[in-house]
Amino acid sequence: MYYLGVDIGGTGIKVGVTDEKWNILAKDSVATNCNDHEAMVKDIADLCKKVCNDAGVNLDDVKTIGMGIPGALNSKEGIVLYANNLNMRELPIVSMLKKHIDKEIYISNDANVAALGEAVAGGAKDYDSAVVVTLGTGVGGGIILNSKIWEGHNSVGAEVGHIVIEADGEPCTCGRKGCWEAYSSATALIRDTKRAIDKNPNSILAKVAQEEGKVSGRTVFTALKQNDSVAKEVFQKYVKYLAEGVANICNLIGPAVVLLGGGVSNAGDDLIIPLREEVKKLVYGGGKLKHADIKVATLGNDAGIVGAAALGK
Amino acid sequence: MYYLGVDIGGTGIKVGVTDEKWNILAKDSVATNCNDHEAMVKDIADLCKKVCNDAGVNLDDVKTIGMGIPGALNSKEGIVLYANNLNMRELPIVSMLKKHIDKEIYISNDANVAALGEAVAGGAKDYDSAVVVTLGTGVGGGIILNSKIWEGHNSVGAEVGHIVIEADGEPCTCGRKGCWEAYSSATALIRDTKRAIDKNPNSILAKVAQEEGKVSGRTVFTALKQNDSVAKEVFQKYVKYLAEGVANICNLIGPAVVLLGGGVSNAGDDLIIPLREEVKKLVYGGGKLKHADIKVATLGNDAGIVGAAALGK
Repeated sequence: MYYLGVDIGGTGIKVGVTDEKWNILAKDSVATNCNDHEAMVKDIADLCKKVCNDAGVNLDDVKTIGMGIPGALNSKEGIVLYANNLNMRELPIVSMLKKHIDKEIYISNDANVAALGEAVAGGAKDYDSAVVVTLGTGVGGGIILNSKIWEGHNSVGAEVGHIVIEADGEPCTCGRKGCWEAYSSATALIRDTKRAIDKNPNSILAKVAQEEGKVSGRTVFTALKQNDSVAKEVFQKYVKYLAEGVANICNLIGPAVVLLGGGVSNAGDDLIIPLREEVKKLVYGGGKLKHADIKVATLGNDAGIVGAAALGK
Repeated sequence: MYYLGVDIGGTGIKVGVTDEKWNILAKDSVATNCNDHEAMVKDIADLCKKVCNDAGVNLDDVKTIGMGIPGALNSKEGIVLYANNLNMRELPIVSMLKKHIDKEIYISNDANVAALGEAVAGGAKDYDSAVVVTLGTGVGGGIILNSKIWEGHNSVGAEVGHIVIEADGEPCTCGRKGCWEAYSSATALIRDTKRAIDKNPNSILAKVAQEEGKVSGRTVFTALKQNDSVAKEVFQKYVKYLAEGVANICNLIGPAVVLLGGGVSNAGDDLIIPLREEVKKLVYGGGKLKHADIKVATLGNDAGIVGAAALGK
């Protein structure tokens, strides 16, 4: 048996076909047609057929189709309630796709789906519970409990970036103040790097930014390698707040593993090793309890396809 | 079929027998013998037999025994890893009790068990997921997902009081700074009431405390009814921080209901109504999403017995 996974994004749609071990046998992509959803669903159906053909898989041997969608969904009914980036409101996407390919079709939020991908075939493969945290423009993520997506009642949970860790702190995109996202996203790291450069225009950090032509999430890591004290201060603050959020997840949910993905996680051990030390100081039990492992996500951009495919498992 | 529930506390052990609808048919209690665990387990066994006898239930018709225990447990193996209040270390309590009464026996942390009690027969009866928060000396609680206790991998989750909502804030008993418990426990409310009285010795709040002979979790509510502006300030701060924690639970876990128990929750609507308003401002989705209901727990001291009994469901 085979599985089709569809990863719908604001600019592109990726489709892949996997085997039962979640290896992607073929994949392809198409630009997202946000202005004509009938056409967009037809594109998805065509791509499903194409990747099966490319992989030499008979469509009859595909068990299910899963889709990861960036928006608020009613996954039971197969409806996208709203997805700003896709220009969707109350769209019955499952029944629309079913007209083209008559299979069992599942949908879930894109962040949940990526987490499931990591859980079945990535960094959380050997764990039965995981929280996957994506450190990108925002802080997103997904929760896997007993090897299944936990999306909250009415799908309103798993907004991992929107737990306040500093009441009345930095403003967050969600309207609240002091959310984890406002300290631990790549956006926040860039903001704090810029603030430090403004305060310390002669620092190595400022020089690195000038050489790179702009401030990115990597700037601070580059300056750190040159032992810059200004970069060190920015980094220590970043790790401290990142650790507060990870420790909150450990204390409240207690998953077997916390996986970090997204742009900032590309720093790898430079980030993970100091983070583990910091989290150890903050988790409940004073070092007596075995809390979650902390690791980097491994599937990268394929997590969405794999997780969407695995919705049918 | 009937169920036995055992609620072990530092000073007393309560045992009850319930029917399949979790009505307590008979209950009794005994002082906790923390110095002789063999004798303590014998006390439990004797009490199990006594309550069955009192209720006219044949011990053969009892399906399971469940125990709620205040400590770190290995619930799969039936072992208390450590429980300070009970003077226990690595105690195989399940096999010890089995020698007296040969039944299926389950254990779980007392806070989880009380949450399960509320889920099967109390304030969360009509919901399939719930987070129960106990506002007492500390802030404890339990998480119920898909009608079952979620205690975290290795039972290390569900420490609901130990999520930081104010990084580097008030010191918490757990060693961390700024935990929810340090703002929302009865202890924290009393601390803030005392601080306000010290600053405002001529306030109505100060007068109420003097009349009551001491500051309690109720003092601020009594002064509020007399429209005291100092009490109002203390209360608004308390509700604000309580709401930050509840909103964190809603955004991260997304349960169908958040139930408040413990001493402070006795304030009822005086607390719950302003709390709901405050949480509404903080949850993700800008009012578009249907987040958890917020209610008061209903079982009081019986939650432990009922939840322990329901471990066998």
